[in-house]
Amino acid sequence: MSHNSPGYSITVRLCYPDQPKFLGMITSTIGGMDASIGAVDVVDASENHITRDITINVNSVEHGEEVVLRLREMPDLEVVHVSDRVFLLHLGGKLEITSRVPVKTRDDLSMAYTPGVARVCTAIAEDPEAAFKLTIRRNTVAVVSDGSAVLGLGNIGPKAAMPVMEGKAILFKEFGGVDAFPICLDTQDPDEIVRIVKAISPTFGGINLEDISAPRCIDIEERLIEELDIPVFHDDQHGTAIVVLAALNNALKVVDKKREDIRVVINGSGAAGAAITKLLISTGIHQIVVCDRKGAIHGAREGLTDLKQWLAANTNTQNKAGSLSEVMPGTDVFIGVSSKDVLTPEDIQTMNSDPIVFGLANPDPEIAPRLAAKHARVIATGRSDYPNQINNVLCFPGLFRGVLDVRASRINQEMKIAAACAIADIIPENDLHPEYIVPSVFDRRVAKLVASAVAQAAIDTGVARKAT
Amino acid sequence: MSHNSPGYSITVRLCYPDQPKFLGMITSTIGGMDASIGAVDVVDASENHITRDITINVNSVEHGEEVVLRLREMPDLEVVHVSDRVFLLHLGGKLEITSRVPVKTRDDLSMAYTPGVARVCTAIAEDPEAAFKLTIRRNTVAVVSDGSAVLGLGNIGPKAAMPVMEGKAILFKEFGGVDAFPICLDTQDPDEIVRIVKAISPTFGGINLEDISAPRCIDIEERLIEELDIPVFHDDQHGTAIVVLAALNNALKVVDKKREDIRVVINGSGAAGAAITKLLISTGIHQIVVCDRKGAIHGAREGLTDLKQWLAANTNTQNKAGSLSEVMPGTDVFIGVSSKDVLTPEDIQTMNSDPIVFGLANPDPEIAPRLAAKHARVIATGRSDYPNQINNVLCFPGLFRGVLDVRASRINQEMKIAAACAIADIIPENDLHPEYIVPSVFDRRVAKLVASAVAQAAIDTGVARKAT
Repeated sequence: MSHNSPGYSITVRLCYPDQPKFLGMITSTIGGMDASIGAVDVVDASENHITRDITINVNSVEHGEEVVLRLREMPDLEVVHVSDRVFLLHLGGKLEITSRVPVKTRDDLSMAYTPGVARVCTAIAEDPEAAFKLTIRRNTVAVVSDGSAVLGLGNIGPKAAMPVMEGKAILFKEFGGVDAFPICLDTQDPDEIVRIVKAISPTFGGINLEDISAPRCIDIEERLIEELDIPVFHDDQHGTAIVVLAALNNALKVVDKKREDIRVVINGSGAAGAAITKLLISTGIHQIVVCDRKGAIHGAREGLTDLKQWLAANTNTQNKAGSLSEVMPGTDVFIGVSSKDVLTPEDIQTMNSDPIVFGLANPDPEIAPRLAAKHARVIATGRSDYPNQINNVLCFPGLFRGVLDVRASRINQEMKIAAACAIADIIPENDLHPEYIVPSVFDRRVAKLVASAVAQAAIDTGVARKAT
Repeated sequence: MSHNSPGYSITVRLCYPDQPKFLGMITSTIGGMDASIGAVDVVDASENHITRDITINVNSVEHGEEVVLRLREMPDLEVVHVSDRVFLLHLGGKLEITSRVPVKTRDDLSMAYTPGVARVCTAIAEDPEAAFKLTIRRNTVAVVSDGSAVLGLGNIGPKAAMPVMEGKAILFKEFGGVDAFPICLDTQDPDEIVRIVKAISPTFGGINLEDISAPRCIDIEERLIEELDIPVFHDDQHGTAIVVLAALNNALKVVDKKREDIRVVINGSGAAGAAITKLLISTGIHQIVVCDRKGAIHGAREGLTDLKQWLAANTNTQNKAGSLSEVMPGTDVFIGVSSKDVLTPEDIQTMNSDPIVFGLANPDPEIAPRLAAKHARVIATGRSDYPNQINNVLCFPGLFRGVLDVRASRINQEMKIAAACAIADIIPENDLHPEYIVPSVFDRRVAKLVASAVAQAAIDTGVARKAT
């Protein structure tokens, strides 16, 4: 059963006779259904009746409905209304665009708008690089999606993708001080997406691609990186890869294994799986087997896509064939970016000593943590309700902060590795523990250290266009 | 000579011997060059010397340079540095994107982002109209430009257009509470612009086109209005037309003439001229002659563009031909949206009694106000340093506020007329005066009244999709 979560939080307004026994009956009913009670507020108290708002965290929409149904069945109790706290929070959208300069007087207007603004425009017309000083380009990133692969929801389209992109923009600001704006595109044609992002790029200092389905996302990203002189970053690929690398670095310290010795199986050959594979290879991990639904990817398999041909050519040097279970024996690390329940406890039992198991499918991992825990030494998931959450929030705000600070023209492998090391190194070696290989997303040091590491790597590799 | 303006404002840091005579010498030098002194601050005072920052408004960049040169020539005085206050104000861009919801705790994150956000996405996927409640679409407008006709600067391109679009966004927020975001496009192909704006529209509740050159802007706007179900508004056309109509309504009251009796000459047949013409016709003004550089537009002229053919067919019922000067005699109103110094005092002398002259070319009007003043009864310009400024800020923030409040699908003529009447009616009839026909841009009542008038007109004409 899933945990109760504020992601499924309702507030019920109840009116009942003002007698001592009632609140106990209500809270017992709610607690008896495994729902968690949060705030309990009095809204109104008349001579005979009392009205209270009770906030309840449940584990699903259905769970919430069952709780309300049970409350409605209680004698002498009226459920006045039920509100969904998550929907209330999202009402009206989650972003606001505000002015950084005053416009209260005629003089303000003359400087911020006409006639003063004309000179600023002219300065940029004469030197387009000045746009990075004199416009929001300095600090603004587009969060671009076509809504084709949103969270675990699939192809829900651009309008329905907006709440996620707005959420992403909030996180950019909160953790990285980056102004991010959601652009949800009403097209899923890769050529069109490339053209549009290029055309809107004068407003932005960087492009964060998000929730675009594979393999289109890989093609779109590659073409945009080639054609734009501002950094383009598909977070679902590289953000995930960076945080996985950070977690793996620390996990290897916990089990005291060397990267050059380990054998890794990556289950999932989509955009994230490929990005993880490339990043691990570039840090000196060479014994990797990538699996898709049909099993291990190797050079002798027929009908491989371009991406899988690349994977076949650059991994699986022993040309292992067979199902996931067949290639698991003798591995040190399992990284799943696939779907739920594809890994069994028996698979883990065939691994080398001190197995490292990252099950990153969302919301349900490749193996339930309680099953994995019996055999694995280190477990990580994508979920916040288990230890070691692989969360991209650890990466993208600080990464783009660093990129914008030095006006990097692109985000290269060295910068990604620098970001991963910065995330991993937050945790002192003495504090490392099988259940603490990744810092908290609320650790405010993370974004700062990622930013400075990424900025330094950009300078060292010659892609920075400005000193910090 | 132009007036000194904070749009041309410099701060000079001066160091000079701490003797009583010096400040007088400095201020006399500055004043002697017709520059205006603002703040005078002490920065540092040592035993023998004093350092001051002096803010000086000048009337041009050259004027500022001359003042600094003269100061540098003064004996015993050091110009430590000179800073341009306008550039300082624009540094780093003028907009910020902030969160409307808290993200300080894990619970916040669960509600604003995953897993809670998934339910909000699903709700929109099931009912796309819910995006107007649950995303920033509710209150967000794109300010779209291709940089082809920016202010009086011409085709300076998308990067150099950004400071104006950011300025526009500030005004949207300050006066209308509308969140506006600049999108500057790196293409000037109308087909491409239409495609891009359509594709990015899921993020926005309205589109404000800005500073796109004619006649492309007319075509682009018409096609977008047709193809999108959110309102599209080219401010340079309709915003100008609305404020002109507001000013004209009040000017007619001042001179006590009826709209059905007056003869109007509109000089300038570009996008603004055409929009003004259409709006005046739809309010019952039928005696209009439109002129371009070649003179009056009439049906017998050859080589007319589509737009000018429309103007010929719908104005100039008497088929007047000839230059501007030749068609001016016997007119009541001159409206110029063309270029400087095309109207002479002699032209005004041929007009009917109580001439109304709107010279809206920027920065220099069709006739200098001091020349027009000898013969015209009511004068309006686009400038803030003369009475009766025709400023679009009076319109667009309130217009879009009203449009968004009722989720109007388009902005029709009735809504434009309602906006013009709301602007005009701010000034009580008893207060009307030849030098006070337009309210101040800082009159906070304007946007509110425009918004409610526009919303009501949208409801009355059936384009509102939501009650206020």
